[in-house]
Amino acid sequence: MERKGMNALVGAIEAGGTKFVCAVGTSPQDLTRTQFATGDNPDTLFSAVTNWFVEQQRLRGMLQAIGIGSFGPVDLDKGSPTYGYITSTPKAGWSNTNIHGAVKRVFPHIPVAIDTDVNGAALGEYYWGNAVGLHDFVYITIGTGIGAGGMAGGQLLHGLVHPEMGHILLPRIPGDTFAGVCPFHGGCWEGLCSGPALLARSGMSAELLPAEHEAWEMETQYIASAIATIVCVLSPRRVIIGGSVRKGGQLGSDRFFQMIREKVQLVLHEYIVSPALHEEIGGYIVPPLLGDDAGVCGAIALAQQAAA
Amino acid sequence: MERKGMNALVGAIEAGGTKFVCAVGTSPQDLTRTQFATGDNPDTLFSAVTNWFVEQQRLRGMLQAIGIGSFGPVDLDKGSPTYGYITSTPKAGWSNTNIHGAVKRVFPHIPVAIDTDVNGAALGEYYWGNAVGLHDFVYITIGTGIGAGGMAGGQLLHGLVHPEMGHILLPRIPGDTFAGVCPFHGGCWEGLCSGPALLARSGMSAELLPAEHEAWEMETQYIASAIATIVCVLSPRRVIIGGSVRKGGQLGSDRFFQMIREKVQLVLHEYIVSPALHEEIGGYIVPPLLGDDAGVCGAIALAQQAAA
Repeated sequence: MERKGMNALVGAIEAGGTKFVCAVGTSPQDLTRTQFATGDNPDTLFSAVTNWFVEQQRLRGMLQAIGIGSFGPVDLDKGSPTYGYITSTPKAGWSNTNIHGAVKRVFPHIPVAIDTDVNGAALGEYYWGNAVGLHDFVYITIGTGIGAGGMAGGQLLHGLVHPEMGHILLPRIPGDTFAGVCPFHGGCWEGLCSGPALLARSGMSAELLPAEHEAWEMETQYIASAIATIVCVLSPRRVIIGGSVRKGGQLGSDRFFQMIREKVQLVLHEYIVSPALHEEIGGYIVPPLLGDDAGVCGAIALAQQAAA
Repeated sequence: MERKGMNALVGAIEAGGTKFVCAVGTSPQDLTRTQFATGDNPDTLFSAVTNWFVEQQRLRGMLQAIGIGSFGPVDLDKGSPTYGYITSTPKAGWSNTNIHGAVKRVFPHIPVAIDTDVNGAALGEYYWGNAVGLHDFVYITIGTGIGAGGMAGGQLLHGLVHPEMGHILLPRIPGDTFAGVCPFHGGCWEGLCSGPALLARSGMSAELLPAEHEAWEMETQYIASAIATIVCVLSPRRVIIGGSVRKGGQLGSDRFFQMIREKVQLVLHEYIVSPALHEEIGGYIVPPLLGDDAGVCGAIALAQQAAA
């Protein structure tokens, strides 16, 4: 996959459960942006969003495409009658919402691309960040939930639906009796390690949790266990971890990543022989180069790919 | 990916830890084949194998390519000085063996393709079996070890090294204290569910284990747990299970697959919404259409792809 359509003027929507970040521009260095609370009335929100793009188009010129990186689950099957819908979300007001159609209706003459927020962020890192030149990598976000996207063989991961890596089951740390917070699976990865899970386990948010609290030890152990599983299943050339929790709160991002790297090596136990998993692991498990902008830049990248 | 080079006359090597199955032909219906014990002297074996292909070429005509589906780990990085080597295997005599070079030396003028045995078997199912038309699927083998290959976006899974799905860690069934047989990870998937693991747990091989033995319950539970993880990470459109254990011994293949399908649904707990995982799960988790020939036919497919 080439980095197609670079420098095209496009629109971008990072559609999250809390807010929609919208931007217009040609690259991460050239973004006009705004944001809207997601709320529980999609129609009202879609009007505000599309009005903003119409206004930006008047100011900056014709958009060549719009990209949407959306919370999910999203129907990405182009042959499906509900293509571009957010489907079975428990989020109030949002079940079976045609997000792609709402944008396409106002911009019928340009491509409107949609993918998961994490595939969008992965594509952003592929265009401008820590995945440039890599055809096999994973982008994980750990925040309100846990999700992941990425590429295999230079193509974004899709398949039957799209990956739902946050819901893999992990072996329990002996003695850990925390039930987990996932309404579907209890103690799946998301149930054990999302921001709300960390809060439920420790009584404190990641930002306030002291560096020496044992919850960090467990948090990084389960994340390492999940990454080891992903390495065994997908054999990525790099693992990028974004989202709020990876900032490590009082622990700090550097120590947070270092703990994960060490634990991944312990879990894999030298079975997979590659410098990337040994002396070069510091460059193997990394934060996004685009930082908190990975999502919105990813939606720009989705649009530019569609415009090309 | 198209099914390239179909009907080309090619050679195939299914390189296993116990035997090398070799074949010459144009399709699964047209194979001349033989086999050799793997042994602990690769050079002797390679001479016998290549002599057989030279003889077959004299009888059937010029081969257009040779494909190798090999036990691993195999170095598949074409830029590596050890490309085409079996690398860190514990198998006596086989560590750092240039299997690709041994064939290429005798057949320097035709393409010699190499991939993992499971990616080969996956490609065989893609050409002629249960993965025709699918661009995202997984092929698992459960026998002496557990391995898996497959496609994402129409390309065979490669990445940093190649998938090592047999070594993912799984949550323990409460009360199960079996240590597992993997020398690296103890109770990883392979450590809990390979043929030798089933033997160590029950004292009986899969062929002799009575249908009502609780080891089948555990075996299918862990396999289901692993498949649920693979579904969350890769979102395949189908999961094919080959190898000897999936025949289910006294339990029978039908019951074995049925138990796995039911348990996969319980593990996923209706989180991923797709007919494939609900009413159509009977067609989602299936044995290979090529049966025990998936491996050798896969090596034929690898060769035909390279010949195209």
